[in-house]
Amino acid sequence: MKNKLLWRTTAAGGAPDSDVAEFTVGNDYLCDSRLVQYDCRASIAHAKLLLKMGIITKKEHAKLVSALKKIILLHKQGKFAVKRGDEDVHTKIENFLVKGLGKTGRKIHTFRSRNDQVLVALRLYCRANLIEAKASIAGLSSALSSLAKKTKGVKMPGYTHMQRAMPSSVQLWAGSFMESLSQDLLAIDFALRVNDENPLGSAAGYGLPFRIDKGVTTKELGFSRHFKNPLYVQNTRAKTELVSVFALLQAMMTLNKLASDLMLFTTKEFGFFSLPESMCTGSSIMPQKKNYDVLEIMRGNLGTVSGNFASILTNSANLPSGYNRDAQLNKAKLMESFDVTLSSLKMASKVVKNLKVNKENLESAASAELYAAEEAMKMAMKGTPFREAYMKVSGKFR
Amino acid sequence: MKNKLLWRTTAAGGAPDSDVAEFTVGNDYLCDSRLVQYDCRASIAHAKLLLKMGIITKKEHAKLVSALKKIILLHKQGKFAVKRGDEDVHTKIENFLVKGLGKTGRKIHTFRSRNDQVLVALRLYCRANLIEAKASIAGLSSALSSLAKKTKGVKMPGYTHMQRAMPSSVQLWAGSFMESLSQDLLAIDFALRVNDENPLGSAAGYGLPFRIDKGVTTKELGFSRHFKNPLYVQNTRAKTELVSVFALLQAMMTLNKLASDLMLFTTKEFGFFSLPESMCTGSSIMPQKKNYDVLEIMRGNLGTVSGNFASILTNSANLPSGYNRDAQLNKAKLMESFDVTLSSLKMASKVVKNLKVNKENLESAASAELYAAEEAMKMAMKGTPFREAYMKVSGKFR
Amino acid sequence: MKNKLLWRTTAAGGAPDSDVAEFTVGNDYLCDSRLVQYDCRASIAHAKLLLKMGIITKKEHAKLVSALKKIILLHKQGKFAVKRGDEDVHTKIENFLVKGLGKTGRKIHTFRSRNDQVLVALRLYCRANLIEAKASIAGLSSALSSLAKKTKGVKMPGYTHMQRAMPSSVQLWAGSFMESLSQDLLAIDFALRVNDENPLGSAAGYGLPFRIDKGVTTKELGFSRHFKNPLYVQNTRAKTELVSVFALLQAMMTLNKLASDLMLFTTKEFGFFSLPESMCTGSSIMPQKKNYDVLEIMRGNLGTVSGNFASILTNSANLPSGYNRDAQLNKAKLMESFDVTLSSLKMASKVVKNLKVNKENLESAASAELYAAEEAMKMAMKGTPFREAYMKVSGKFR
Amino acid sequence: MKNKLLWRTTAAGGAPDSDVAEFTVGNDYLCDSRLVQYDCRASIAHAKLLLKMGIITKKEHAKLVSALKKIILLHKQGKFAVKRGDEDVHTKIENFLVKGLGKTGRKIHTFRSRNDQVLVALRLYCRANLIEAKASIAGLSSALSSLAKKTKGVKMPGYTHMQRAMPSSVQLWAGSFMESLSQDLLAIDFALRVNDENPLGSAAGYGLPFRIDKGVTTKELGFSRHFKNPLYVQNTRAKTELVSVFALLQAMMTLNKLASDLMLFTTKEFGFFSLPESMCTGSSIMPQKKNYDVLEIMRGNLGTVSGNFASILTNSANLPSGYNRDAQLNKAKLMESFDVTLSSLKMASKVVKNLKVNKENLESAASAELYAAEEAMKMAMKGTPFREAYMKVSGKFR
Repeated sequence: MKNKLLWRTTAAGGAPDSDVAEFTVGNDYLCDSRLVQYDCRASIAHAKLLLKMGIITKKEHAKLVSALKKIILLHKQGKFAVKRGDEDVHTKIENFLVKGLGKTGRKIHTFRSRNDQVLVALRLYCRANLIEAKASIAGLSSALSSLAKKTKGVKMPGYTHMQRAMPSSVQLWAGSFMESLSQDLLAIDFALRVNDENPLGSAAGYGLPFRIDKGVTTKELGFSRHFKNPLYVQNTRAKTELVSVFALLQAMMTLNKLASDLMLFTTKEFGFFSLPESMCTGSSIMPQKKNYDVLEIMRGNLGTVSGNFASILTNSANLPSGYNRDAQLNKAKLMESFDVTLSSLKMASKVVKNLKVNKENLESAASAELYAAEEAMKMAMKGTPFREAYMKVSGKFR
Repeated sequence: MKNKLLWRTTAAGGAPDSDVAEFTVGNDYLCDSRLVQYDCRASIAHAKLLLKMGIITKKEHAKLVSALKKIILLHKQGKFAVKRGDEDVHTKIENFLVKGLGKTGRKIHTFRSRNDQVLVALRLYCRANLIEAKASIAGLSSALSSLAKKTKGVKMPGYTHMQRAMPSSVQLWAGSFMESLSQDLLAIDFALRVNDENPLGSAAGYGLPFRIDKGVTTKELGFSRHFKNPLYVQNTRAKTELVSVFALLQAMMTLNKLASDLMLFTTKEFGFFSLPESMCTGSSIMPQKKNYDVLEIMRGNLGTVSGNFASILTNSANLPSGYNRDAQLNKAKLMESFDVTLSSLKMASKVVKNLKVNKENLESAASAELYAAEEAMKMAMKGTPFREAYMKVSGKFR
Repeated sequence: MKNKLLWRTTAAGGAPDSDVAEFTVGNDYLCDSRLVQYDCRASIAHAKLLLKMGIITKKEHAKLVSALKKIILLHKQGKFAVKRGDEDVHTKIENFLVKGLGKTGRKIHTFRSRNDQVLVALRLYCRANLIEAKASIAGLSSALSSLAKKTKGVKMPGYTHMQRAMPSSVQLWAGSFMESLSQDLLAIDFALRVNDENPLGSAAGYGLPFRIDKGVTTKELGFSRHFKNPLYVQNTRAKTELVSVFALLQAMMTLNKLASDLMLFTTKEFGFFSLPESMCTGSSIMPQKKNYDVLEIMRGNLGTVSGNFASILTNSANLPSGYNRDAQLNKAKLMESFDVTLSSLKMASKVVKNLKVNKENLESAASAELYAAEEAMKMAMKGTPFREAYMKVSGKFR
Repeated sequence: MKNKLLWRTTAAGGAPDSDVAEFTVGNDYLCDSRLVQYDCRASIAHAKLLLKMGIITKKEHAKLVSALKKIILLHKQGKFAVKRGDEDVHTKIENFLVKGLGKTGRKIHTFRSRNDQVLVALRLYCRANLIEAKASIAGLSSALSSLAKKTKGVKMPGYTHMQRAMPSSVQLWAGSFMESLSQDLLAIDFALRVNDENPLGSAAGYGLPFRIDKGVTTKELGFSRHFKNPLYVQNTRAKTELVSVFALLQAMMTLNKLASDLMLFTTKEFGFFSLPESMCTGSSIMPQKKNYDVLEIMRGNLGTVSGNFASILTNSANLPSGYNRDAQLNKAKLMESFDVTLSSLKMASKVVKNLKVNKENLESAASAELYAAEEAMKMAMKGTPFREAYMKVSGKFR
């Protein structure tokens, strides 16, 4: 028996077809490199279960834990990247254990499937990144709060239909994004809750023929509950991943609105805000140019996340229960969604912190017609039915 | 001053262009007909505020409430449908009040905007329909639970990659959908929570120039809180609507999986389940046919809801803050999403209740190779490292 | 044998379940009402084939043709609307023929399936509407051409990154949409070509057991070729429908850009263009307001068409060959896409024809910095390497 | 003046902010590495124009061409990868020319913008890859044709609604995909036609202040026409990219159908086809497993391309005319779409070539009820009205 085995590509019995292997792995190995620490942590928890069940001895357990911790360290040092030929992160780690620990390594996969591993690693990945998103949202909210304080009293026109509508203020405008972020936090908390379930023990989606104490890994990995139905665990792949992507999408909608506003308000014609030249970009042909590319990329990242949402949804539509490998493709889409949302949130904080407020332009734009509704309402306060008041004031503008 | 005024189409001062009116209203009046009761209830709440603020007298208040209740009644009797020429439900109702109550009717719009009205009506609509979705989910879950009990002990192959994998059971299979529905309830609760906020008083998105007691309408309409930032209220249009549609999408993913499974399991080749002939459909050309169209429409409704999700998202992308009329188009998409999801949930209950279980086919399909993993695990229990056990058992199948 | 039969709902043998019938038909009967003339025309062509094959006599043929023409007339008079209880347009028409012509009516369905009928009716529908789209595009292009002529010589700033970039003109701007529409015509021609294939004779997707002369109906209906593979004909449902929707999407992208530009250029801050008050809309609360709702609905219609595209795609993904009833749901999405695109194209012509050009604002916005690139290029013409020239000019703006 | 300049990040005048640079460049540099040859070829064509216009001498021209050819060679040898710090491929190449050729290098950018360069490089990239797609389609079509020949006469059930419907054959089934690919070729030809337009000379979207002979670069690069309106050239970014992605989507729909069919037909229950074990994959836990992951990834790639389509569409929606940097994000989506479609087409050929046909299972599944429609039609041929014949035959199956 060889030390290195590729379970997916060789276990079916044939000599593996390298075209098929390359095609099916695709770029997934790049995603898998980002799951090393999560897979190792889950394997450490699983080893504890195996110890408890008498599959491995105390000594074997210690060796496994030590080897898995070493992998985490190697990975941090950039020495454990998953390569296409490794099949995937799970096979690579198991092969590492088998190579280093021999027989003991060959025991680690008792009572679990690769599906178990993928699921638990992805949930740990999502948890860590959702928590990071919350921190970034808090940072952006704090930057907006500072802006609101700094600009207290600065008037600004409020727009509807992109036309001047009613009096507003920079503070009100900044506050709308703070409130939007509050709602985004609810979406993230919902995603955290849905992810907060230990899938280990679901095996290939039909559970195990022997009773195991799921509480061991649940506690070890900090989940607050374990799964109830092993088949549903498999069926969560796209469905629960979309819960995370949806939460990111909500945050990106907030940032898309912020960037869209700023792109408009930094035009020469509006001139309400600007960014320092160091944050702007020039043109290759027009020497006078100062562009807000940073806002455009932030704005455009909404399309990335929404496309990923559509992609995950489409490739899971109309498929029967149980693991289908199409789900592998979700991984890259999920990770890209986290990447662009997290980087956009951070960049948005920097943008808000560096925003220059052109008070003069803002206030001169808060022109008299913004007060037309107020005028009609004052008449209503004094007894004129509102519709009559409205018509009277309206007459002044025709 | 005429009794009937179309605020959108005439208030800008010109004689209204009928092509423009037809184009901008589109089919939205059909959606608006479904909001009559919600707009009236919100207007009743608003009247209470106007009474408290001294804008209307007790007598005027009583007249308004009575007229609004009459509209609700007329609508239930099918006598208050919004027509294209009415502009929208809000204008139609206000014109009805002005026509019936004269001066008093002209006061109802004091301190509110149409945006206020649209938002509150949509939130009340979503709340009612989300609650109905919860009830339908409970009904389906109960049908699944009965199926699980009825089929206790009936074996079934578990599939991965659409190939027979491990032993499963009808009970386990049915249970996976019950668990899926539990998660869907979480999504609906999240949507309910996000919708549970009184938008009245946000006016055109920039609040009112006078302080009003928002608690009055909040209490009256059963919201648990009122909005904090009036601009964000406007900016929730697509963003919060997507929260509802996402919850529906999660439920439709559950139903799509159920329908996909059943389409496979009712083929001649699988033959695990069937439906009574009264629920099947025939062919116009093939006399022998018995088709499961009911499952196909259920399956296909996922595409409807996901397309609507994409539509709402795209038409709000890259737009600046404040109301933009593009949002009107979301209404039809939101309502269609509720319609198909609610009807699919109900139909799914009926399907599950009428499902005939072909025990013989199910058990004969649960063939011996499903126990290969168990065999390897048993060897692992007795001391053979799992990987060695796996290879030994694997050899039998090559 | 009863005169009225519902093939789908009763032919499977059972007493039809009314919930299932209502659920599966859904709102499709509304779409079907719009296919009456196309189904009749295809049936007239099919009758000619049956005559040639000796299935019906000359007399029977004359009766069928006359009855089908009568249906077309009745439909034009609004007297032949398909109702939910009719199952679908095809069954309704066949039942009408059976009721009126007895035995002769019972022959019309020889050698064809409902799938045949749906496909041919949809292709005729698409052909007619694609041709109408071409005419509307020509109309809009002509309106843009008039605008370009009328504004000859009027300067305008050219923007990149939403910042003033280089000198442009209203003529150049209008010309960009004319050119965009030219490309859209190519997409429509592609869609016309793909639809230009007679599907009759494909039956349920597996052809007929007898040879028929497909040339008869091909010629009669004005198709330039007939299908080659009957199974592919069925598999075109979503695939070819998406070709039409894609062509509409291209046109809507043109209109979305036009509307987005105009929404920006009609703001108070830009002030380049305006529309007459009769084409604008007012606010329910702000007496001064003049909004461009007509542009917002036009802009938002892109989301509708793109959502429909996503919907059709998702509900056909991962499905096996042969007709699947999920495809029925595409019909409403296809028709809505045509409706909003055609009405938007017409409205765009009206908008362009009524556009008021504010020459003063346009020219004063074409400020000096737009000529920075020209200055650098002039230096390059005289021998300074462009990059050096660029840096020199650039220095003036920092 | 330094030799290395980053036009985007420094030309606006400030000391560049590295966070902004990293955020805006993102992963785009990876895409840019794939455009090296196209940018060089376009620069060679542009140099010819500069020679003709007297901006550079014959000697300078020769130096530029030689340096650009060297870059192409270096790139082929893997020695010219674009790195994040290079800004983009265009800046990297210009900096290479400036470093190597000094003053001459500083002249290459005369009369062109980076937008020009991006557009021409992307069109050349699309052209090359669309042509490759055509070749791969031809290969797959040929494999299908061989399969059809090889299986001549082998019966197979035809399915509708996933139920056995009418007699079919492997030949008919294979032929349906050949016909589908024929339509896909039309879509690719349409995409080629739309891309076949020289954008050089459009500069930043507003043309050049001097007349240039666009025919020079048009001829040099093998385009059949040059652009008409410079602003539309910029506005094609998302719009024309979607034409290419749509063509790929059509091809992926063909492959998704093929893979979906094969996933069904290779189940134990159907058993119509199989693939050699070398092309199958095993399970990490179930020793008996033989999975068709190759088909699942092929099937799932539709979701990738359709998500990319949605992404490009969303991030261009509602944006005004002229270059917006959001368009940069389309590049990765476009390239991924080409990558997965091209690799799927190639893999599909291999799958079809290696498909094992289980004649016995196929023919035994072509059971008697498939001939019910034929029986009714035979009766119709002999004079019984079809509907009566249908009812008679139908009775046998109830």
